[in-house]
Amino acid sequence: METLKVSTRSNPNSVAGAIAGALRASGAVEIQVVGAGALNQAIKAVAIARGYVAASGIDLVCVPTFADIQIDGEQRTAIRLGIEDRQHRRAEPLPQVDLGSFEIN
Amino acid sequence: METLKVSTRSNPNSVAGAIAGALRASGAVEIQVVGAGALNQAIKAVAIARGYVAASGIDLVCVPTFADIQIDGEQRTAIRLGIEDRQHRRAEPLPQVDLGSFEIN
Repeated sequence: METLKVSTRSNPNSVAGAIAGALRASGAVEIQVVGAGALNQAIKAVAIARGYVAASGIDLVCVPTFADIQIDGEQRTAIRLGIEDRQHRRAEPLPQVDLGSFEIN
Repeated sequence: METLKVSTRSNPNSVAGAIAGALRASGAVEIQVVGAGALNQAIKAVAIARGYVAASGIDLVCVPTFADIQIDGEQRTAIRLGIEDRQHRRAEPLPQVDLGSFEIN
């Protein structure tokens, strides 16, 4: 699954476009953030993306989980937001295209 | 539907307990936040609550939307997080108990 890294400097509208594209392409996408400012941009993007994909019949939902990651050798707690169509069953996943991981600014 | 107002001073574990209780009682709950710090506490609470309710067979998902609200006569943009069981159909809602609105610290 594609992972989008969102930061405090990320533009919510740009991230929303990336979410909508990935969701249409592969049925699910993951956002990873560290810190309150980055999470704020990510959640704004999710709220915007919900409108983008609604017309395609996608009922976008978000599943937040914690993740322990290393940044410059230091242990940090990230938040991962699984972004999926509500109907998407993780037990029987759709075929997914791995587009790799990149940061959106 | 019950609305929980979460602030930067809210304890994520306490909020998670309130989310789990409301979700079991009425099938859905709404969280309202203003600002990145409050949103951070709310999303941490949602991630924790997901674990609390999983044993009951509830697949907790989150639906973020924007809301224009007034605070002390000033227009502010709040974020509302609809917290639902993934299976919960908003088109055919479960009977819901209105427990009112309160702030959790």
